Amino acid sequence: MAAVDSGYPAPVTSPDEVDGDRDVFAVHEGGKLTVSSRTPIGSIDDLALTYTPGVAKVCLAIAAQPALARRYTWVPRLVAVVSDGTAVLGLGDLGPVASLPVMEGKVCLFTELAGLSAVPIVLDTTDVDEIVETIVRISPSFGGINLEDISAPRCFEIERRLKERLSIPVMHDDQHGTAIVVLAALRNAARVTGRALGDLRAVVVGAGASGIACTRILLEAGIGDLAIADRQGIIHSGRTDLNPAKAEIAGLTNKAGYTGSFGDAMVGADVLLGLSGGQIAEPAIASMGRDALIFSLANPTPEVDPIMAARYAAVVATGRSDLPNQINNVLAFPGVFKGAFDAQATAITEGMKLAAAGALADVVGGDVRPDYVIPNPLDPRVVPAVSEAVAAAARAEGVTAE
Amino acid sequence: MAAVDSGYPAPVTSPDEVDGDRDVFAVHEGGKLTVSSRTPIGSIDDLALTYTPGVAKVCLAIAAQPALARRYTWVPRLVAVVSDGTAVLGLGDLGPVASLPVMEGKVCLFTELAGLSAVPIVLDTTDVDEIVETIVRISPSFGGINLEDISAPRCFEIERRLKERLSIPVMHDDQHGTAIVVLAALRNAARVTGRALGDLRAVVVGAGASGIACTRILLEAGIGDLAIADRQGIIHSGRTDLNPAKAEIAGLTNKAGYTGSFGDAMVGADVLLGLSGGQIAEPAIASMGRDALIFSLANPTPEVDPIMAARYAAVVATGRSDLPNQINNVLAFPGVFKGAFDAQATAITEGMKLAAAGALADVVGGDVRPDYVIPNPLDPRVVPAVSEAVAAAARAEGVTAE
Repeated sequence: MAAVDSGYPAPVTSPDEVDGDRDVFAVHEGGKLTVSSRTPIGSIDDLALTYTPGVAKVCLAIAAQPALARRYTWVPRLVAVVSDGTAVLGLGDLGPVASLPVMEGKVCLFTELAGLSAVPIVLDTTDVDEIVETIVRISPSFGGINLEDISAPRCFEIERRLKERLSIPVMHDDQHGTAIVVLAALRNAARVTGRALGDLRAVVVGAGASGIACTRILLEAGIGDLAIADRQGIIHSGRTDLNPAKAEIAGLTNKAGYTGSFGDAMVGADVLLGLSGGQIAEPAIASMGRDALIFSLANPTPEVDPIMAARYAAVVATGRSDLPNQINNVLAFPGVFKGAFDAQATAITEGMKLAAAGALADVVGGDVRPDYVIPNPLDPRVVPAVSEAVAAAARAEGVTAE
Repeated sequence: MAAVDSGYPAPVTSPDEVDGDRDVFAVHEGGKLTVSSRTPIGSIDDLALTYTPGVAKVCLAIAAQPALARRYTWVPRLVAVVSDGTAVLGLGDLGPVASLPVMEGKVCLFTELAGLSAVPIVLDTTDVDEIVETIVRISPSFGGINLEDISAPRCFEIERRLKERLSIPVMHDDQHGTAIVVLAALRNAARVTGRALGDLRAVVVGAGASGIACTRILLEAGIGDLAIADRQGIIHSGRTDLNPAKAEIAGLTNKAGYTGSFGDAMVGADVLLGLSGGQIAEPAIASMGRDALIFSLANPTPEVDPIMAARYAAVVATGRSDLPNQINNVLAFPGVFKGAFDAQATAITEGMKLAAAGALADVVGGDVRPDYVIPNPLDPRVVPAVSEAVAAAARAEGVTAE
């Protein structure tokens, strides 16, 4: 456990400190994306084949047989990265325009890591009905919808309704990308401490998009017990202040019956999953059980100081790239969409997400150590492993257009 | 006039005949577009600059000063090519999915000829209100809106309302792209026969999107007289069956007072502009005035047989790439949007379109001949000439965000 014992750099506390030799603004100058033609336009003959009159032949063929759009358009390898800018990173509601650099960055990762194409679509509305209608109307342009940085609880209803309306993959990455990576890392963290998921009692701090989604996937994967807390304390069925998403989760969690603050549940807990962006002080950490697993994912400042956490925990994971065990959505979404597209999946199911998490954990395999429970975000084995598992799950479940 | 006298290949009558050695479907295999990252993602450092945590710095900067989006996102060089698929080429209502190959082709031309980026957005609605609202809501994602293949008269209201609502360039290319190129070619055709636009009486056959737009720009440019006909005959103020666009045009045209079929107006006319897709027989052509100018733009089959037309006319232009004087929108839209973007224009005005037409005509300049009244669609002088003229006009009119 040497790597988590000491020697951590001090946490950065603002984006001003992230630059090394290269300036982040220089990287963004002129935007990060470009669209190009895969066919040359150097002659009148090129023009006649790529555009009119030749293109008419392809249009007529697709009109007669719509499935040909899969073969003769870019749609089946194109993701829309859609946001209303209401929950940008941990920064809150910055609006659609200021969210664009995140969406462009997401597209860079889709293109560079998974070989897909993607386009940022930022929306000048925060109304749930309007967002759903807008995405449905533009949906023939895209092969899949990656929802991004949309605040809870609106994100739950938007995703649910889009999944009902559309027969293409739809995934809110802040929920399910995080959940897949957390499950993969927790599976390996349990293993490295000689336990299985069913042996663990977890406390989730933060009941926003990622907190709810992580809770759901951990329950599906068979975690022993789990209590989730929001700012008002542990979520339980006796509370009258819960939104529908929290009320539903109240009925599924907290077998131990906690009703107080999150600190009550921390006593003797095996897992802390921090997804709140707040700060958690040392006494709560010190009260956890032996071989605690602490995942503290707020960026750039983890909820739990990683140096302090390492004094108590067997495994520490954060969202930071300069510390071991980085929980980064980039480990999930490129492979999930690639796998869904490869299988011509009509949805992203729970089974596909569980398969993604399993494959991601297996990339670490026998090399698992307390400071290596999850692959490096750019490990070239990740996207093939995840995409193959996701495609296989889609085929096994029969949710494909093949 | 040798080139228009004889030796024309027989017109093609279906897209089946357009292939040479290369197959149009092979060119479309897998779609024609790709998005790529302008910044490498090869290391954790790249990831931290392009995506989290570094990107937060750029988001915060834009949130504080929205004009920085012009510098740090791809939006100011990105066009949305938007269609509902209701008027695809001359093929009619094929729906959004089957229109995609045209929209992808349009994007190829934006990227390859003007160095812009563009994205096809095809819509699963044909309702005017829904189309307008959808485009307004996604508009923060784009620097300009190119409307495409939307049927008349809906296209007029959609464009008008979007221009009112948005402060970025909006242009329905089927209207204004065609109008710009027609005006440029007609200006040179008049010149080559020793006349000015004011000396000409024109008959426009077809009162759809392009017919109405060509009529408007020819009036603005000072054509002597013009009568426009739809399937019911000449449009005049006495008719009670006119949609609002046609009713308005009735009040602006037809000084000669024609009220019958288009054939009545053809007798002695100087210009025929065919934009109907129908067929015009020899007697009507034979009745035109001396040194007639015949622009017959239906694709792939011109309204007037070009070989027959050449027996009567001083200048013949078509939409076909295998004949001289090809009227092709590709001569306008890449340069128009590039110029509008270069000037940070907040709209595309009538003055900018007239400037585009003037610049396009001037590319031909002193080389003008009856079989060369308009540049080759891929002439490398076109986009710089058009874009500079459009940007200068925008600046002169003060419709810029600079």
